[in-house]
Amino acid sequence: MKDLISARQISEKVFSEIYDLYKWFKESYNKGEKKFDILRGYSVLLPFFENSTRTRTSFELAGKILGADTINISASSSSVKKGETLFDTIKTLEAMRSDFIVMRHYMSGAPKIIADKINAHIINAGDGANEHPSQALLDTITILEKKGRIEGLDIAIIGDILHSRVARSDIILLKTLGARITVCGPRPMIPRCMNAFDVDVITTNIDEALKDKDVAIFLRIQLERQEKVYFSTLNEYSIKYGLNQERINLLKEDAVIMHPGPVNRGIEIQSELVYGDRSLILEQVENGLFTRMAIYKYLLEN
Amino acid sequence: MKDLISARQISEKVFSEIYDLYKWFKESYNKGEKKFDILRGYSVLLPFFENSTRTRTSFELAGKILGADTINISASSSSVKKGETLFDTIKTLEAMRSDFIVMRHYMSGAPKIIADKINAHIINAGDGANEHPSQALLDTITILEKKGRIEGLDIAIIGDILHSRVARSDIILLKTLGARITVCGPRPMIPRCMNAFDVDVITTNIDEALKDKDVAIFLRIQLERQEKVYFSTLNEYSIKYGLNQERINLLKEDAVIMHPGPVNRGIEIQSELVYGDRSLILEQVENGLFTRMAIYKYLLEN
Amino acid sequence: MKDLISARQISEKVFSEIYDLYKWFKESYNKGEKKFDILRGYSVLLPFFENSTRTRTSFELAGKILGADTINISASSSSVKKGETLFDTIKTLEAMRSDFIVMRHYMSGAPKIIADKINAHIINAGDGANEHPSQALLDTITILEKKGRIEGLDIAIIGDILHSRVARSDIILLKTLGARITVCGPRPMIPRCMNAFDVDVITTNIDEALKDKDVAIFLRIQLERQEKVYFSTLNEYSIKYGLNQERINLLKEDAVIMHPGPVNRGIEIQSELVYGDRSLILEQVENGLFTRMAIYKYLLEN
Repeated sequence: MKDLISARQISEKVFSEIYDLYKWFKESYNKGEKKFDILRGYSVLLPFFENSTRTRTSFELAGKILGADTINISASSSSVKKGETLFDTIKTLEAMRSDFIVMRHYMSGAPKIIADKINAHIINAGDGANEHPSQALLDTITILEKKGRIEGLDIAIIGDILHSRVARSDIILLKTLGARITVCGPRPMIPRCMNAFDVDVITTNIDEALKDKDVAIFLRIQLERQEKVYFSTLNEYSIKYGLNQERINLLKEDAVIMHPGPVNRGIEIQSELVYGDRSLILEQVENGLFTRMAIYKYLLEN
Repeated sequence: MKDLISARQISEKVFSEIYDLYKWFKESYNKGEKKFDILRGYSVLLPFFENSTRTRTSFELAGKILGADTINISASSSSVKKGETLFDTIKTLEAMRSDFIVMRHYMSGAPKIIADKINAHIINAGDGANEHPSQALLDTITILEKKGRIEGLDIAIIGDILHSRVARSDIILLKTLGARITVCGPRPMIPRCMNAFDVDVITTNIDEALKDKDVAIFLRIQLERQEKVYFSTLNEYSIKYGLNQERINLLKEDAVIMHPGPVNRGIEIQSELVYGDRSLILEQVENGLFTRMAIYKYLLEN
Repeated sequence: MKDLISARQISEKVFSEIYDLYKWFKESYNKGEKKFDILRGYSVLLPFFENSTRTRTSFELAGKILGADTINISASSSSVKKGETLFDTIKTLEAMRSDFIVMRHYMSGAPKIIADKINAHIINAGDGANEHPSQALLDTITILEKKGRIEGLDIAIIGDILHSRVARSDIILLKTLGARITVCGPRPMIPRCMNAFDVDVITTNIDEALKDKDVAIFLRIQLERQEKVYFSTLNEYSIKYGLNQERINLLKEDAVIMHPGPVNRGIEIQSELVYGDRSLILEQVENGLFTRMAIYKYLLEN
């Protein structure tokens, strides 16, 4: 496994090995070992063709903590503006003896096409509306750490399924590990190909979706991706699909809520619930750092 | 003292401790010790919501010299564009186990609001027209190094007092340490609340302001902050408030001139005087590096 | 030799010393020594006033591999937007005790003017249509490595000579080392002052230019620099001056083709030839990394 492109690459065995690395890094860090030499002499290049704070910072910081030399390349200040093809840009970065290329691109499938022709480890940090496998890993790890298992859990994913690479990767990995998945959102936001993902329940009714669930994952309304109008107003979306105190009560008593961020406060989740006692949103970010450290090490060794 | 938000936090004792750290770093560096392990394993995240060269570079370089992992986050390539609240952005950065968050924000008071809810050390690298405490420290240290004292010095601050966070922080710290402060600028550029700062003299006449002063600090005309017109033309401003050779002669014989930069040459200071023998402008930049190293270490220890 | 500003500074002796350093770095790296302490405690600041991926990344990565602290400064997020002069910006960076300033600027001659007044090592990473000496070094080194010599080689440089700093620096250095240079392009793209460069052949006929050459260097059509129209359409340019399989056959049997990148595929070079077996384009990028490591070390020692 040279690259991490899709959640489909993550079998139960792969997940379990990455989770072991994750635990080791988190424990070492918590004991005060905050700097490693694992990637000393390795370079991590991060070409990002879409804006990002958390994912880019998380991968960059994880790389630095492991001792790598890291370099950011944002589309706005790069040769991409000069009309270079993506393949040539990445081929050029590889030629600089880069070991890891962590890329985000607006085009679904871009990292896959690249990875087959490049010797460096390619990590997909999000490609269009397609996949975001490191997010699926950190989400699944966060649930596992809290719940002690994935198998048999009842998990609802709510919101803009159609445009969400997080939804796609989460569903794939959580299903692989035996969770039961309910997806819920306005009809036009649920892709027609949903069956291909082997989802257990598809509904447009949020109360039905949340009922007796162990985990509810709320997705960001990605206004920047919507070319058509999928609902009349944000206010209407918030009323029909936003999380409020009443709806939290539909979940199991020990249920948790998650969101990949950034949250549109008051739209997907009522503002005072964002960091409430059910929320794992900050744990997701924190665990993301150790998950990415584990991903680097896993790809290096396998 | 977890955070550095305001010059009001800097008592005589605090200043003296930071100054001792500053001297130690500067001396060590000048002896050839140019790399430290003090922040090894620590991370410094620098979210900047306004453009900056000197402050951002100075904090970043100071962090690296101390061995920290540093990460830049500029508003233009971050999730801020996705509508995330500032609080959520910073909370997210904290969750990545960041130790220091050095932030610049266009909103007065932003770092204060944040700091109370965040465990990481927050350093205010400039908030709107409110404060810029690290600049006050480096300015005061530069004066002290040159003059041997702050107490009893006669210091003039000239220009756009109203929009200047540098002026505010400088006045607070210099007064704490016993300097006598004269502020001078066009009437509409002097805030009405000036009295609250316990300034000694307020005048619109630059010749009166400069007369027999030990130090003259010229402020940048921040055209980018002016929504109203405060003077008819830049040329008029330059004639009425710009420093020229004749006006230098009004100062004490051993007086020095300062400017936080970037200088609008020919407006605040006549071009040939910018790096003249009275000017401490480059010393300010140089001392800024060691001041910021001292700030990191001070916050870490206290 | 404090600075690297122009290919004119690179005598046969200088070239040979830099080449020796290059070989040493490349061999060490290939043996697995991927991290050095040569620049530990040194800082490399990279103010780039024009977009760049390969040059900026290459210099930054080379600096990091040598142990330096590196800091990017892009025009878009810096005080340049506040109207500061270039000289003041660089003077400020120097005051932060920076050891190397690697600069790219849209103005021909900018680094030269700066270097004379600055103690830090200035490296010209491209100034307007003037020079790009590190590119000349890496191009020449790549040819030397492949061909075993520079003296007596027949080299064609094809394309937009007028706007190309690469052409200028390549010609200067290759002539210094004894190559025979043919330049070729549409008439309006060949500067009138070409004679000053002591070029051997000037032609507008590409078939004549390529005939029996050892090396053909294709230049990027820099549409972003063209204020006037130099040819009717890109398609016409491609037909008249683009490299295709037929034209490759005009070259010597063991000839190589080069391009500084980014390539406009199908314009300067037919797409399938870009990484063909004659192409050294990726070797140029790879060797660029070691060349820049050699440049840092050379300037440090001399």
